[in-house]
Amino acid sequence: MLSPLLENLVKALSALPGIGRKTAQRLAIHLVSQKPDVARQLSSALAEAVEQVGKCQQCRNLTEQEICSICNDIKRDETLLCVVESPTDVLAIETAGGYRGRYFVLYGRLSPIDGIGPGQLGLDDLEQIVGNGKIEEVILATNLTVEGEATAHFISDRVKAQGAKVSRIAHGVPTGGELEFIDSQTLGFAIQGRASY
Amino acid sequence: MLSPLLENLVKALSALPGIGRKTAQRLAIHLVSQKPDVARQLSSALAEAVEQVGKCQQCRNLTEQEICSICNDIKRDETLLCVVESPTDVLAIETAGGYRGRYFVLYGRLSPIDGIGPGQLGLDDLEQIVGNGKIEEVILATNLTVEGEATAHFISDRVKAQGAKVSRIAHGVPTGGELEFIDSQTLGFAIQGRASY
Repeated sequence: MLSPLLENLVKALSALPGIGRKTAQRLAIHLVSQKPDVARQLSSALAEAVEQVGKCQQCRNLTEQEICSICNDIKRDETLLCVVESPTDVLAIETAGGYRGRYFVLYGRLSPIDGIGPGQLGLDDLEQIVGNGKIEEVILATNLTVEGEATAHFISDRVKAQGAKVSRIAHGVPTGGELEFIDSQTLGFAIQGRASY
Repeated sequence: MLSPLLENLVKALSALPGIGRKTAQRLAIHLVSQKPDVARQLSSALAEAVEQVGKCQQCRNLTEQEICSICNDIKRDETLLCVVESPTDVLAIETAGGYRGRYFVLYGRLSPIDGIGPGQLGLDDLEQIVGNGKIEEVILATNLTVEGEATAHFISDRVKAQGAKVSRIAHGVPTGGELEFIDSQTLGFAIQGRASY
């Protein structure tokens, strides 16, 4: 029913996560009939980004330079290394503010069933960075999910063997959380991890 | 925080309707770090579609040909013309099946406040098509909203003046609709428009 080029565009759009066939149709028709400029801009931004953006040679975060702006920033504390699952996590922590160390991006978590082992997560690079001796503390900021915990555990063992101090982000009740509605595991961790006040 | 090219991509993605800054960030990072092929395909599909897809010279539906496949289909009834607000409506009616006539796409509805008058909706082209004399019935399938109704009314007056028969899609309770939960205006129309059974 759609013309071949539109059908092509709908297929490409529905390959995006969270965009189904109907939304893709609406987007495609909207872009082509109402917003050709937006479409052109998106097309060239995509092409440029995908060809030029790669991983930082130190922290593996996304950048079009060899070394990203965070690793290049001499004002950041090079004794602290925060290990996260994804570049979006770097963004979240930077937006929260307060952290002034460096990062290391895993791009995933250990998942033997999907064939994701230590090699895919760049753990050899991580060991090398820690082995350089400047890092005093490795903060494990993988997600608080089963896979994230397992990954943190695995990394912790390897990094501790190198003699670095390892910490894990705090597990507890989020801001605005009402105890009544918090799951009991989180509540258990919150009580266990209580701090003097 | 994001590298300039990624920031650029995030801005282009958040120009899409229904995609906010956070979703755009997640999409951009996902595309660049995990799915470069999807990104390349989307980039070229967008560029191709926006350069080559235009309006059918007869019905104004989107097509990369001069005349779209529906207008070109000699098996379709050329005495019936269905007027819709958008190409997505053509798609919806075609998916529903049953209609074998032609279409005319307005790309919007009359909205003097936004500067959308009869000229923007191609009503002169519509009059010319009706004036050719082959059309026996014009079906007004604009949305059942205030603007859609006003547009239908306006077109009806102009087309009737040319001597063509005009009809409006039925207004009533949708399939699966429970009377208890239908708004009273719809229910009023459903009773007014009752058919013998």
